[in-house]
Amino acid sequence: MHPSRWGDPARAAALPESTRGLIELVFGLDERPVAADPALAPSALGPDLLDGLAALVGGDHVRTDDQTRRLRTRGKSTPDLLRARAGDLSDAPDAVVRPGDHDEVAAVLAFAVEHRLAVVPFGGGTSVTGGLVARRQGFAGVVSLDLVRMKRLLAVDHVSMIATLEPGLRGPEAEALLAAEGLTLGHYPQSWEHATIGGFAATRSSGQSSAGYGRFDSLVVGLRVATPRGPLELGTAPASAAGPDLRQLFLGSEGTLGVITAVTVRVRRLPAVKVYEGWRWPSFGAGTAAMRTLAQSGLLPTVLRLSDESETAVNLADPAAIGGEGATGCLMITGFEGTSAAVEAKRAAVTALLTDLGGTAVGEAAGEKWAHGRFDAPYLRDSLLDLGVLVETLETATFWSNVERAYADVKAALAESLGDPSIVLCHVSHVYETGCSLYFTVAARESADPLAQWGSAKRAASDAIVTAGATITHHHAIGTDHKPWLAQEIGPLGVSVLRAVKADLDPTGILNPGVLVP
Amino acid sequence: MHPSRWGDPARAAALPESTRGLIELVFGLDERPVAADPALAPSALGPDLLDGLAALVGGDHVRTDDQTRRLRTRGKSTPDLLRARAGDLSDAPDAVVRPGDHDEVAAVLAFAVEHRLAVVPFGGGTSVTGGLVARRQGFAGVVSLDLVRMKRLLAVDHVSMIATLEPGLRGPEAEALLAAEGLTLGHYPQSWEHATIGGFAATRSSGQSSAGYGRFDSLVVGLRVATPRGPLELGTAPASAAGPDLRQLFLGSEGTLGVITAVTVRVRRLPAVKVYEGWRWPSFGAGTAAMRTLAQSGLLPTVLRLSDESETAVNLADPAAIGGEGATGCLMITGFEGTSAAVEAKRAAVTALLTDLGGTAVGEAAGEKWAHGRFDAPYLRDSLLDLGVLVETLETATFWSNVERAYADVKAALAESLGDPSIVLCHVSHVYETGCSLYFTVAARESADPLAQWGSAKRAASDAIVTAGATITHHHAIGTDHKPWLAQEIGPLGVSVLRAVKADLDPTGILNPGVLVP
Repeated sequence: MHPSRWGDPARAAALPESTRGLIELVFGLDERPVAADPALAPSALGPDLLDGLAALVGGDHVRTDDQTRRLRTRGKSTPDLLRARAGDLSDAPDAVVRPGDHDEVAAVLAFAVEHRLAVVPFGGGTSVTGGLVARRQGFAGVVSLDLVRMKRLLAVDHVSMIATLEPGLRGPEAEALLAAEGLTLGHYPQSWEHATIGGFAATRSSGQSSAGYGRFDSLVVGLRVATPRGPLELGTAPASAAGPDLRQLFLGSEGTLGVITAVTVRVRRLPAVKVYEGWRWPSFGAGTAAMRTLAQSGLLPTVLRLSDESETAVNLADPAAIGGEGATGCLMITGFEGTSAAVEAKRAAVTALLTDLGGTAVGEAAGEKWAHGRFDAPYLRDSLLDLGVLVETLETATFWSNVERAYADVKAALAESLGDPSIVLCHVSHVYETGCSLYFTVAARESADPLAQWGSAKRAASDAIVTAGATITHHHAIGTDHKPWLAQEIGPLGVSVLRAVKADLDPTGILNPGVLVP
Repeated sequence: MHPSRWGDPARAAALPESTRGLIELVFGLDERPVAADPALAPSALGPDLLDGLAALVGGDHVRTDDQTRRLRTRGKSTPDLLRARAGDLSDAPDAVVRPGDHDEVAAVLAFAVEHRLAVVPFGGGTSVTGGLVARRQGFAGVVSLDLVRMKRLLAVDHVSMIATLEPGLRGPEAEALLAAEGLTLGHYPQSWEHATIGGFAATRSSGQSSAGYGRFDSLVVGLRVATPRGPLELGTAPASAAGPDLRQLFLGSEGTLGVITAVTVRVRRLPAVKVYEGWRWPSFGAGTAAMRTLAQSGLLPTVLRLSDESETAVNLADPAAIGGEGATGCLMITGFEGTSAAVEAKRAAVTALLTDLGGTAVGEAAGEKWAHGRFDAPYLRDSLLDLGVLVETLETATFWSNVERAYADVKAALAESLGDPSIVLCHVSHVYETGCSLYFTVAARESADPLAQWGSAKRAASDAIVTAGATITHHHAIGTDHKPWLAQEIGPLGVSVLRAVKADLDPTGILNPGVLVP
């Protein structure tokens, strides 16, 4: 498998001819080759260091072969993929180390402090913000701390409806272990098939069912963390007034303050029924107003999404799904999960309210189509990059009163920066009483320097987000890419606090150096 | 008004003869006098410092008269009251300073750094954990920073359903300003009539309607904070993945990291309907199991409380309210607030479920009785202290699977420490999917040294709480009283992180020294 590609090679598929024709029409075709087996610099770690690490985790679990290192190089942002496609794997780790439990993680951290090794905690490798690109300067080498062996369900409490999971469990693995207990986490980000429990916590991930199950950070009741200064166990109760909530420092800490070695989460009973359906709205504004009314009425479905006019037309439009050929407007997806009685009651109330507000129900086919393809977009991106079409996403969130402005400003910034031919699509996929997320997808003809091309567009969009008073990220985290805007969002004193916490827990700065903390 | 008494002197009332008779029967009567106008040490601040402060906030707003200082001395825990009743006001501040806005707060902090004055932020003065008892050693004096002038509603956003409030607004004042906009915060802790918005945030307060409206920390979307190193503005969106959530450091920070000068909160529409009613359960276990089922079915009323057998018998038992003379068991209160349709639907679903689970509906009289007296318990405590009956409360929270153990252990620890005659009552007043709070009230015959008597009982209960794995406080915060147990709850590295944040924001340690941070 090539390090520039998403997911499971068996799932990669050539574009259908019709899509290829559309792409040719809009962007022209310009097939872009991928550098085969890009070369790596040799590992900077000598046999003494490698033996030292092997003594901690076992020889099988210290890897320096090229392919293992290639697949732990950077994450899955489009710039990450573009670099890998061009054969640039200069950020490859020197070794991949796979601890088996909390104590082995702690031992590796102590070793790394002693030998000045940078440590990059690695879960699913799906970061899209440069969260896996550690600064190498000042270190004897970079170790990818792959948590792939830490995949246990450590505890289940059916009375309290909580479960303790190890960080290396991927989304489907965690769900399978919980399903055997009749339980679900209900956390389905687009990266779900590959991303891990530890990564969900470390990046404050949000899933496609967040309206029903909550953001990942809201599911977390307890954390175990290994730091260079020792362990932390946080979270003893469903709620507490025992001072500042220190869990909230590690949620979103992206491996810079410690390595999360266990996560205790709220779980729900496996839903007996899952129904997804489509609604059509005359405009994005009408659709977002309806979402707001649902949220502020306490009537949120499990899934609630709304594509703008462009995304409806380009991405989702089986025209039949929104009312037949020639239909215009925006497609909303509503999903209901739970007991049959709960689904029936909620669905009836939502249907009544959306109908009142001017929505048109367009049936379950649209919902099923969305549910079927919900994890596929990254494969499509690979196929488009092969054709020289630059595809990338970015996202934000803001209060309802600011949605129209943030939407318009970010869209304009992207369109202006990318020029013609390009398209900018948007959807809302996370809804709260006070506001919602905005998720933008762009496609453009690749220039001769697509990294610079996207870099300009990303800067323009990020400036627009912060100028509009929205957050630089709703669920993609900071990584290295968002650091300048994080500094604007939390101000110089907020940065100072982050640095103080980092200096306290990681005084030699070995943990994911250069990531998150401005 | 005497500094040992709660609230509004006009509301203080002699005990009814029947209650007095019951008290005499159980504890005997031993009337305890209150030291009249307890003497204060003169203010340690000379005219230069007082003039310097007056230059910042105006001469009217720097007070050193005895009565003003008396009423800013300590909080309202029973030990606080016992000390004041005995004439001990040794913790009185040297001056009470009343800034008018954020900039004046910042100016006072800068002045305090320069002149090594300890600063105790003061809202309603209702701390029950020693949160207003700053360490004097090492400082030139102690200033009570009374936020009473900061009472504005700074902004209302009816679209996003958020409002920005100043910290000095008391509960009823905030509700009145919001009610004029058709809105409510819905936050009603027992201290509501006196406690303030800033205090709610700084202590992670939880109100009697938390099941419906949420804990105060969950209502906060934004904070403005003045620190000795400058201002912080946190919270730009309904949800964010932009690194650690720094708001969660200031929520629960009890004035030790900064002074909260504005709080942006989620608000709801004023409810058209409020209904409270009673249910009877054969046992505390059956009642808590029913609460758990409600929470885990997504069917929480706005208010949900359950008294144990003892509290039902002693405190609430209008026997008619739970089923007539001779009725036993536990009284539950359910309350529903919202639109008429929402209340009707939720109430019907809750009624069906509680009936299924074996509860007996006992009508609205019990609910009304609770609602009517919900803020009165502290007045009753004053009357009992006058009769030599020691009354105090403490609370915790834990996961459902641990409720039975925590309840039994804490109750036993209190009963054993207090000996005969004493009574220990308990109720659940905050309910979550994963667990609930436990709130204990004790009454005992005062010994010759009631401070030592309660000190022993409090230590025994706190040890039992932490040993059972519960949190040292669900909504009373840490103050000075809970510090040793906070250290156990978050561990040495958690303490280290708190100290690092404190050292960064308040390098000279002027902010509420000795409070919260172990």
